[in-house]
Amino acid sequence: MKHEGTLGVAVIGTGRMGSDHVRRIDEVISGARVAAVIDVDGERAEKAAAGIPGCAAHTDAAAAMDAPGVDAVLIASPGPAHEAALLDALARDLPVLCEKPLTPDPASALRVLDAEVRLGHRRVQVGFMRRYDAEYVQLKALLDGGALGRTLMLHCRHRNVATPPGFTEAMMINDSVVHEIDATRWLLGQEITAVSVVKPAPSSAAPDALSDPQLVILEASGGAVADVEIFVNCGFGYQVQCEAVAERGSARLGDAHGLYVNAAGRWGGVVAQDYVDRFRDAYDREVQHWVDATRRGATEGPSAWDGYAAAAVCEAGVRAQSSGTRTEVALAARPPLYA
Amino acid sequence: MKHEGTLGVAVIGTGRMGSDHVRRIDEVISGARVAAVIDVDGERAEKAAAGIPGCAAHTDAAAAMDAPGVDAVLIASPGPAHEAALLDALARDLPVLCEKPLTPDPASALRVLDAEVRLGHRRVQVGFMRRYDAEYVQLKALLDGGALGRTLMLHCRHRNVATPPGFTEAMMINDSVVHEIDATRWLLGQEITAVSVVKPAPSSAAPDALSDPQLVILEASGGAVADVEIFVNCGFGYQVQCEAVAERGSARLGDAHGLYVNAAGRWGGVVAQDYVDRFRDAYDREVQHWVDATRRGATEGPSAWDGYAAAAVCEAGVRAQSSGTRTEVALAARPPLYA
Amino acid sequence: MKHEGTLGVAVIGTGRMGSDHVRRIDEVISGARVAAVIDVDGERAEKAAAGIPGCAAHTDAAAAMDAPGVDAVLIASPGPAHEAALLDALARDLPVLCEKPLTPDPASALRVLDAEVRLGHRRVQVGFMRRYDAEYVQLKALLDGGALGRTLMLHCRHRNVATPPGFTEAMMINDSVVHEIDATRWLLGQEITAVSVVKPAPSSAAPDALSDPQLVILEASGGAVADVEIFVNCGFGYQVQCEAVAERGSARLGDAHGLYVNAAGRWGGVVAQDYVDRFRDAYDREVQHWVDATRRGATEGPSAWDGYAAAAVCEAGVRAQSSGTRTEVALAARPPLYA
Amino acid sequence: MKHEGTLGVAVIGTGRMGSDHVRRIDEVISGARVAAVIDVDGERAEKAAAGIPGCAAHTDAAAAMDAPGVDAVLIASPGPAHEAALLDALARDLPVLCEKPLTPDPASALRVLDAEVRLGHRRVQVGFMRRYDAEYVQLKALLDGGALGRTLMLHCRHRNVATPPGFTEAMMINDSVVHEIDATRWLLGQEITAVSVVKPAPSSAAPDALSDPQLVILEASGGAVADVEIFVNCGFGYQVQCEAVAERGSARLGDAHGLYVNAAGRWGGVVAQDYVDRFRDAYDREVQHWVDATRRGATEGPSAWDGYAAAAVCEAGVRAQSSGTRTEVALAARPPLYA
Repeated sequence: MKHEGTLGVAVIGTGRMGSDHVRRIDEVISGARVAAVIDVDGERAEKAAAGIPGCAAHTDAAAAMDAPGVDAVLIASPGPAHEAALLDALARDLPVLCEKPLTPDPASALRVLDAEVRLGHRRVQVGFMRRYDAEYVQLKALLDGGALGRTLMLHCRHRNVATPPGFTEAMMINDSVVHEIDATRWLLGQEITAVSVVKPAPSSAAPDALSDPQLVILEASGGAVADVEIFVNCGFGYQVQCEAVAERGSARLGDAHGLYVNAAGRWGGVVAQDYVDRFRDAYDREVQHWVDATRRGATEGPSAWDGYAAAAVCEAGVRAQSSGTRTEVALAARPPLYA
Repeated sequence: MKHEGTLGVAVIGTGRMGSDHVRRIDEVISGARVAAVIDVDGERAEKAAAGIPGCAAHTDAAAAMDAPGVDAVLIASPGPAHEAALLDALARDLPVLCEKPLTPDPASALRVLDAEVRLGHRRVQVGFMRRYDAEYVQLKALLDGGALGRTLMLHCRHRNVATPPGFTEAMMINDSVVHEIDATRWLLGQEITAVSVVKPAPSSAAPDALSDPQLVILEASGGAVADVEIFVNCGFGYQVQCEAVAERGSARLGDAHGLYVNAAGRWGGVVAQDYVDRFRDAYDREVQHWVDATRRGATEGPSAWDGYAAAAVCEAGVRAQSSGTRTEVALAARPPLYA
Repeated sequence: MKHEGTLGVAVIGTGRMGSDHVRRIDEVISGARVAAVIDVDGERAEKAAAGIPGCAAHTDAAAAMDAPGVDAVLIASPGPAHEAALLDALARDLPVLCEKPLTPDPASALRVLDAEVRLGHRRVQVGFMRRYDAEYVQLKALLDGGALGRTLMLHCRHRNVATPPGFTEAMMINDSVVHEIDATRWLLGQEITAVSVVKPAPSSAAPDALSDPQLVILEASGGAVADVEIFVNCGFGYQVQCEAVAERGSARLGDAHGLYVNAAGRWGGVVAQDYVDRFRDAYDREVQHWVDATRRGATEGPSAWDGYAAAAVCEAGVRAQSSGTRTEVALAARPPLYA
Repeated sequence: MKHEGTLGVAVIGTGRMGSDHVRRIDEVISGARVAAVIDVDGERAEKAAAGIPGCAAHTDAAAAMDAPGVDAVLIASPGPAHEAALLDALARDLPVLCEKPLTPDPASALRVLDAEVRLGHRRVQVGFMRRYDAEYVQLKALLDGGALGRTLMLHCRHRNVATPPGFTEAMMINDSVVHEIDATRWLLGQEITAVSVVKPAPSSAAPDALSDPQLVILEASGGAVADVEIFVNCGFGYQVQCEAVAERGSARLGDAHGLYVNAAGRWGGVVAQDYVDRFRDAYDREVQHWVDATRRGATEGPSAWDGYAAAAVCEAGVRAQSSGTRTEVALAARPPLYA
């Protein structure tokens, strides 16, 4: 099903991420337009739609999907609302870009998977945008190229300046490390089979309930091991680094770029302060690729299986966090659709 | 004159640069479409237009400008053809993005300037795309912010892998250093008043007629001095660097980015091999900004005056190259339109 | 007991390390001379002594210690020979610089400790030379200064080009990670309380019996956690890196230095190929500091306790390697002499 | 004339540099001792000699050279006193390490040259210590190795935090750029034939009489060109950088090293604050090499010819500074002794 003209996208959710996607499709992306915005809060939906030519405001996602001019769906609502929206889109055979997580738990993710399998072809892309970051793409190409031999280890750092109120330890896995989980699976081409978590004495900058930072160890089906420092109150910036250690060399991404300044007795530059700053280009590229593929009638990028597998690893990770022991990941059989 | 809908752009020239802009507007840019392509070679024009919905092929620029659906003009033909196209566009009050150079010499540039002054408002933006490079933008902001004090010197490096057949010494100034000339004027907010050129013994990799590399020294009206290494057969890559030295610190742009690899006894990464690789994002941003401003009814970015001043400095630079002496730049009075 | 004149040093062992120390004392160090060299192989001892004015060759360490002109002892023989030499030196109240390990196991290390405690003052310095590396010294000062807050984690990389024949998994801990063990104890000012080892699928460059690389996790008494990648057949160079993650920032040492070269499409430089290259200055500084302190009548630097504690952690590490489980470190009470 | 035992060195001058050399020989260098210190101010000489075993204090250099136990001379007095001390040492055929400048002007330097030529063998080494800096040594080896082809240009930066009272423009050449002059001659293996100086509008941090920074352009006999930014009130640190541009690549030394710190929204590290910090190891290596060569009976390192040539280029440089024009260097014929 190819789309000859401009792709009409219905954006579900008008929070920070949804609004940013509306702006992106309206101002940055070629070949797409925002045909509808959906929010359970009608006033917010109206506000988001205002000023965008031909954009309708809805409070009901299914109704929006049925509206004329809607060719595809971008889900940016809170995680618990994803399952329903995904099933609605699949029922209509509509292409979907679903912000991570696919759904908040493996069971619900499996239900989405089943629906897509029944449909018989892929329609869902999950928003693991790191796969569209220039450096991750280079790293993937380098590792796949084989010049360095087989990949043995990944050393990952994921640091945020500070957590908003209500941020929990489980969210360190589900919202933050989930990116390293997907990146590890993707870079290695291996499933993650076990998770361990080691907790240092927490930073005094961490809120009371939060043991921050943590060291998360992921074991992969091919024998590779990834360690992830997750530190969500590091204070100094937003920093994502990954060093792949292979048989004949190592490669690191995420060094700070930009101007190199000498001043006041120091050399160096500025650290990005949030993920928008660091991954803006990756988001742009992700959505542009999704639009391009969708117009060609294709669904590419991270699949519902990737979303499900990430959910299964996250679930094991949260259990490892509280038990303090190595926890194996329970994974369903992979349907041939995702082979 | 605001443009409510998608901006229809006529692209003049279907060489490397023109084709790239056609692809860019078609696939990357939001809010614009390629309405027409123009090439004196009708077959090439037809080929470039094929596959782009609603795009007409022309051999005559003026005719294309008169065609319905053409709202703006992007000039990417060879430099000698620019003047006529610019005057045609200005006669029709059409917004223009003109690839550098504005025109190949100061006299013709002045005629374009005069036409725009008579029109009474800016319609021409010149394609000095470095002003849209993320690092140049950061450097400009840093210097303008004043934290480092007044800028005293610029050290610039401009290196190409190798020159195509027929590349002349004058082209080292007119095609290459012209970017440093514009960047120096823009970063400093000063006009360039004199040029000197020092020629080391040439590289054995340089073609016979080419004294390559050269050291070009630019003196600016506010007293700042810029030195430019231009080395168009450096062999190892395409590299553009600029270090601004100010009263309380220095800032450098153009360090190579990307993966940091340890392998085979070495650490490091890859150097970009051409300007497309290095400045792709700057071109995308340049054209998107032009489209956005044009749709708002505005003309921003480097002006015809910037194009004229660059041509005047280039002319002095080429004379300094052959005379071996410090050569002053003759500059017309700046019309109030460009104040 | 101060030494007014030049310090006469007896060097025990004439292997790679011993010969290097003989050269160092003879040619680099101020205030010391090689008074005697000892090797069980008399011919090697004679060869090592030849050409050094006033240097005697011995096959018996105790006899050498009794010879006139011997003021201090540097032990660079194989680890199993250390205990006897240390006890001999302590029996004579002679200052000793003992290459790591103090002794190969905690029990023998404790016997040395007891002898020094009975002597009533420190005479033994252990050769953990990283404490004399310029970058480690800077890192220690930065962390102790408190500007970054409490240290939470250390990420360590220890890579060798390749292993010699006969290199065992236990040696990965006892000969290599032992440096990170000491550095961790020293940087944190905490004892290590438990060790875990995770083994990725080994590199095909590793010898058959060697699961290489490995990830070693050290838990410290104050709650800090260190992870150590030990990869002794990495192929590309000798690389030691350490990133300390603290409450308000992180600091990394071990980035490659030296010339920054652009050539053949790449930027970067060379990686050190062995520990001599990387730590030459640290060895020089270590021995110079030892000589200076000894001439002042003092014993400073890593103590016999540090040597014992490292041995105890190594023992736990080797057990963790084979058991695959987290292994607690059994540590004797710390005598007041080492408070 | 070989020296079997410890080399007795007479150090002339007890200012900052002389005191530092006294400390260096006493505490750092192997195979040498301070046999005498000389200062026209007898009290300062006594103070400098105190606490150094067997060190005599003198006010007369010639008398010190005649004293028993003096095998070699290190001249660290002010430049105008160098000629007399050098001639005294040459008259006694004593090896000399003379801090730069050899003498303050070409005429006096020629007189020293003549004396050494009459002596018939080299006895004088000039203290251009950059030739002993690890990175300069690497750069020299890289360029001489030929992998990058012939060297075409050098880009040099020489920055000091601030000038002491009384610092003049001539001193920018004679005291600061003189190092780049020697390094350029040494790296290229070419004499410098002409000097030009361009003066930007001075920094407001520069004292009234000082046009700071300046751009100094050196043309070499083989056709290479070096540009030197000399900025002696840069405020942020002491920084010496040199990028050699060759036919097939470029190589840069002088990037800041040490810890890489993330904190307070920035990445980076500290810039050295003075030459001691930056070149401590080079000074140590220089004096150790001089002592080693002298004990072998050899005189190596930068020669009196190098000192003379630097003086001749400096003279031209100072004239270029005031005239504003390209100034050719007048150089005497090179005696075969320095071939």
